Amino acid sequence: MSLRPDLDLIVQELADEMRRRPDRGEVATYIPELARVDPSAFGMVVIDGDGRVSAGGDSDMPFSIQSVSKVFTLTLALGKAGDRLWRRVGREPSGSPFNSIVQLEREHGVPRNPFINAGAIAVTDAIVSGHQPREALGEILRFMQFLADDDTITIDEAVAASEQRTGFRNAALANYMKSFGVIENPVDYTLGVYFHHCAIAMSCRQLAMAGRFLAHSGVQPSTGRSVVTAERARRINAIMLTCGHYDGSGDFAYRVGLPGKSGVGGGILAVAPGKASIAVWSPGLDASGNSHLGRIALEALVKRTGWSIFGV
Amino acid sequence: MSLRPDLDLIVQELADEMRRRPDRGEVATYIPELARVDPSAFGMVVIDGDGRVSAGGDSDMPFSIQSVSKVFTLTLALGKAGDRLWRRVGREPSGSPFNSIVQLEREHGVPRNPFINAGAIAVTDAIVSGHQPREALGEILRFMQFLADDDTITIDEAVAASEQRTGFRNAALANYMKSFGVIENPVDYTLGVYFHHCAIAMSCRQLAMAGRFLAHSGVQPSTGRSVVTAERARRINAIMLTCGHYDGSGDFAYRVGLPGKSGVGGGILAVAPGKASIAVWSPGLDASGNSHLGRIALEALVKRTGWSIFGV
Amino acid sequence: MSLRPDLDLIVQELADEMRRRPDRGEVATYIPELARVDPSAFGMVVIDGDGRVSAGGDSDMPFSIQSVSKVFTLTLALGKAGDRLWRRVGREPSGSPFNSIVQLEREHGVPRNPFINAGAIAVTDAIVSGHQPREALGEILRFMQFLADDDTITIDEAVAASEQRTGFRNAALANYMKSFGVIENPVDYTLGVYFHHCAIAMSCRQLAMAGRFLAHSGVQPSTGRSVVTAERARRINAIMLTCGHYDGSGDFAYRVGLPGKSGVGGGILAVAPGKASIAVWSPGLDASGNSHLGRIALEALVKRTGWSIFGV
Amino acid sequence: MSLRPDLDLIVQELADEMRRRPDRGEVATYIPELARVDPSAFGMVVIDGDGRVSAGGDSDMPFSIQSVSKVFTLTLALGKAGDRLWRRVGREPSGSPFNSIVQLEREHGVPRNPFINAGAIAVTDAIVSGHQPREALGEILRFMQFLADDDTITIDEAVAASEQRTGFRNAALANYMKSFGVIENPVDYTLGVYFHHCAIAMSCRQLAMAGRFLAHSGVQPSTGRSVVTAERARRINAIMLTCGHYDGSGDFAYRVGLPGKSGVGGGILAVAPGKASIAVWSPGLDASGNSHLGRIALEALVKRTGWSIFGV
Repeated sequence: MSLRPDLDLIVQELADEMRRRPDRGEVATYIPELARVDPSAFGMVVIDGDGRVSAGGDSDMPFSIQSVSKVFTLTLALGKAGDRLWRRVGREPSGSPFNSIVQLEREHGVPRNPFINAGAIAVTDAIVSGHQPREALGEILRFMQFLADDDTITIDEAVAASEQRTGFRNAALANYMKSFGVIENPVDYTLGVYFHHCAIAMSCRQLAMAGRFLAHSGVQPSTGRSVVTAERARRINAIMLTCGHYDGSGDFAYRVGLPGKSGVGGGILAVAPGKASIAVWSPGLDASGNSHLGRIALEALVKRTGWSIFGV
Repeated sequence: MSLRPDLDLIVQELADEMRRRPDRGEVATYIPELARVDPSAFGMVVIDGDGRVSAGGDSDMPFSIQSVSKVFTLTLALGKAGDRLWRRVGREPSGSPFNSIVQLEREHGVPRNPFINAGAIAVTDAIVSGHQPREALGEILRFMQFLADDDTITIDEAVAASEQRTGFRNAALANYMKSFGVIENPVDYTLGVYFHHCAIAMSCRQLAMAGRFLAHSGVQPSTGRSVVTAERARRINAIMLTCGHYDGSGDFAYRVGLPGKSGVGGGILAVAPGKASIAVWSPGLDASGNSHLGRIALEALVKRTGWSIFGV
Repeated sequence: MSLRPDLDLIVQELADEMRRRPDRGEVATYIPELARVDPSAFGMVVIDGDGRVSAGGDSDMPFSIQSVSKVFTLTLALGKAGDRLWRRVGREPSGSPFNSIVQLEREHGVPRNPFINAGAIAVTDAIVSGHQPREALGEILRFMQFLADDDTITIDEAVAASEQRTGFRNAALANYMKSFGVIENPVDYTLGVYFHHCAIAMSCRQLAMAGRFLAHSGVQPSTGRSVVTAERARRINAIMLTCGHYDGSGDFAYRVGLPGKSGVGGGILAVAPGKASIAVWSPGLDASGNSHLGRIALEALVKRTGWSIFGV
Repeated sequence: MSLRPDLDLIVQELADEMRRRPDRGEVATYIPELARVDPSAFGMVVIDGDGRVSAGGDSDMPFSIQSVSKVFTLTLALGKAGDRLWRRVGREPSGSPFNSIVQLEREHGVPRNPFINAGAIAVTDAIVSGHQPREALGEILRFMQFLADDDTITIDEAVAASEQRTGFRNAALANYMKSFGVIENPVDYTLGVYFHHCAIAMSCRQLAMAGRFLAHSGVQPSTGRSVVTAERARRINAIMLTCGHYDGSGDFAYRVGLPGKSGVGGGILAVAPGKASIAVWSPGLDASGNSHLGRIALEALVKRTGWSIFGV
């Protein structure tokens, strides 16, 4: 490991290696739009503190970011509600699958963290906060465009419509929380916004751009603008580390050693604090619902760069 | 925050501040030996990579390390069993209290991680591994003495006897795992070793000494001897971060931002990778069973030193 | 106990005794319509095999039958679907509160029995079965009117509207089952019918009339018409015995010894096979959500009549 | 169905029918003594109120009564402790498998009913109650011999030894309850007595003899001696009905309609209140751990006799 690793080379090598691997995991099939995605796709982008972009594979192909959006809605909601947000969502790992409702009963409707589905719905509700769904969704989308410095980012309406049509389990979670007063807006409003922000389509390049502030003390390095305080950036990273990969979060920390958030579309946003913002995408998922090759590529990247937050 | 913080000053200031605080949490009372400990005690020791020791408060007073011992038994067991250890214990946060048995039923006797009681008992069983309890316990104690470079470390037999006399819940966990074949030795053997290694008494100074290899890529800096590989040190740190504070692990990561392991005796071992090994002790516990002032002192230390693993 | 107990006397004595008792339980308050009910109300009606009606207290005052309706929707649904109904609902006691969602996760969306809320919603869905909600509801209401031989029975629309406005937990259950395919109709349809049949208002007299077929081998004694087969009547009674009082079913069997179904409005329908159909109403509930004085009155009735199914 | 069914004929026909059936369930294999039992065995004995014995099949072959013993230990414990027994064991159906520990955590160490393993261990503890295990066990055995009017009934020591050697899950349950103070004697004492009373060997004839008092208001018809009050007999029957077949209790009530208690050795004791005491034995078990052919034979017996407690 050199002090300044040749990131271009590493990323391209990794993209090549990943493309050759026979094991790819299973593409999500619960909606047709995800089921149709090419399982052989793989993209990776690393953006360091100087703004240098190292890209490999399908780095400009947009994909459904799904739960990766939850990092950004958490950031937005904390900006609006501050620490009051923690009254309606915890920040402990769940020890359960992403869509479990058991924990909600034990803890009286308060989801354990912002990254399981129930918690992300509660966070979305804090963004809706009395507004019309359209306005809340516009705010989320503009925030993503601002962070990625790219106005072309959009919502895949076909994905959103499919999610809404089949999202009975999320409707169960939302209604359950509503019965405890944890959801304040009409369930339909909050769910509508939730399904749509999960349907945002982005490329690895756009996603890595959007994640830069988390790697750099809350500041967008290209503009010097502060998105959040340094403390809040650290705290969001901490939540990503402990809760970002559902019931595979411990394993991701153990193997990769970076804060990260995965989505069922196969994307992962990872943060090397002080060093880089990283996005990787491969649609095949492992048993915990996280990108199989995405995790493997990140593990290899960290090994070659020495970026683990747990020591060199 | 300076590049080289004046650790002596910071640690002494923190010890003074902590002693003045009125909120101290609740001392564990389930055995008389712990219930008798002075709730106003507070000690802290930071040892940096050059071996400089910064100490404050009751830094040389021995206390019952309890679950902090689980970091070291995990290290030992990995040395013996290697990755085979993961067949009988997971490494995911539990989402449950430290002594819950519910998860064991759902996951067929395999505890979620090495730091909840069930997992630590399974790890102890891997150390016993066909030996007599006395031999296994001797090996654990010598390992602690070696790591701390201090032959005076001993087991508090009164604590061990009390634990054994009242440890029905741990006996339940062990028998339950035995019914699934996860415990291989006689339940009494494994429990005996477990209760005794939790009863090791150490001071903050000794504990911080023992933890140095985790901060320095697996190497004991004073002797240059490798205790574990750099990768294993990182991985143990990762497990400490995600699972080291029971059902308060997410909160500890969020507030403190360092890998750490707490014990019901009020001790916490924390690791600032590449920077320092830290031990803190204050007997009063918070609702999750972790040292109340210990956590607060670590949060303040990290704020003043900028040592969070999640960014400056 | 005489061979032919003087039911008129017993029922009137019981009504008097119950009215004098200071302990009345707690009236349900989750909707204003129930919260407003007079807690001192008490009514009881016993109809024997010869059609003699013994009435005491507020025996003609209508109340919200709530979950007592589930006995009749189960009867209707079995008539439509036969044993196929058991593919989507079990018949085991639940060991959980009436509105628990935990069990649904463990058993993949199949509720344990037709009398917990989830199970009753699944049963209602089998009645809706492709029809418009209005038609399904009309069928249920006409069935009640037929059984009670009383066309004046109606639905309390204010209760139904309140239930619908606040029924987020039932909406959670329904959506959850829908996600497993256990609910076939649109969730809104099924829930609408469910909330309305729970809002049927009946007096003890009407309710005891409606329950006669369960006491008499499936036959309505006054007309000689067979409502269900003798075997089905026995089986519905069996489910009432094991599941009819939520998580207080074991206690009801232990103390009273008759098949019975309670509702949160304070009504209980009980069946003495071969002897009598019994309805009792007192709005105050015990900790399990069953009528406090209703249960006590039934216990006393059985003691004086020797009607326990578990022996004289 | 005649008023006086020809029980001799019915029982012999049933024994013949059952022997010809190809479906026999699965014999328990967790200890070699049970695994060795001939799966084609079938026995049935019905004893009516006049003491007439109708026997069919292997009605005099002794088998391991296992959990059927829990009816008798409950009877004994109620005799000793009275209603104080209900402080440490509930009487609600469990909604869980017979050896689940999950419920114990939720309900602070108090088992839900006397017939799941945890509850039966707590009941056994009430019998031990300060005595030496040998004395307690002697009392239980003498009680069985008295009820069956047969001094030859013994404990199968090989079965008891096997249970004890492999009974880690029961040891987990007992230790868990001990941690909540629900078990008062040394865990080893209580477990020893428990394993031994489950290892009592009896034939259908002996078991049906022993159960007579439950069918006849607490009185042993042959001697006229009162074993328990009529009320207690009814209440024990009620608990058998709601909890006697583990997580198949609802189904047994639905299909058979008699109070009954099954054991993993393939025996079932059933009670037709006021009519008969019935024992049936066939070693093959269904998915809930209850005798497959035993349940089917009882269902047929009740159909032919009209003895269902839920109506003719």
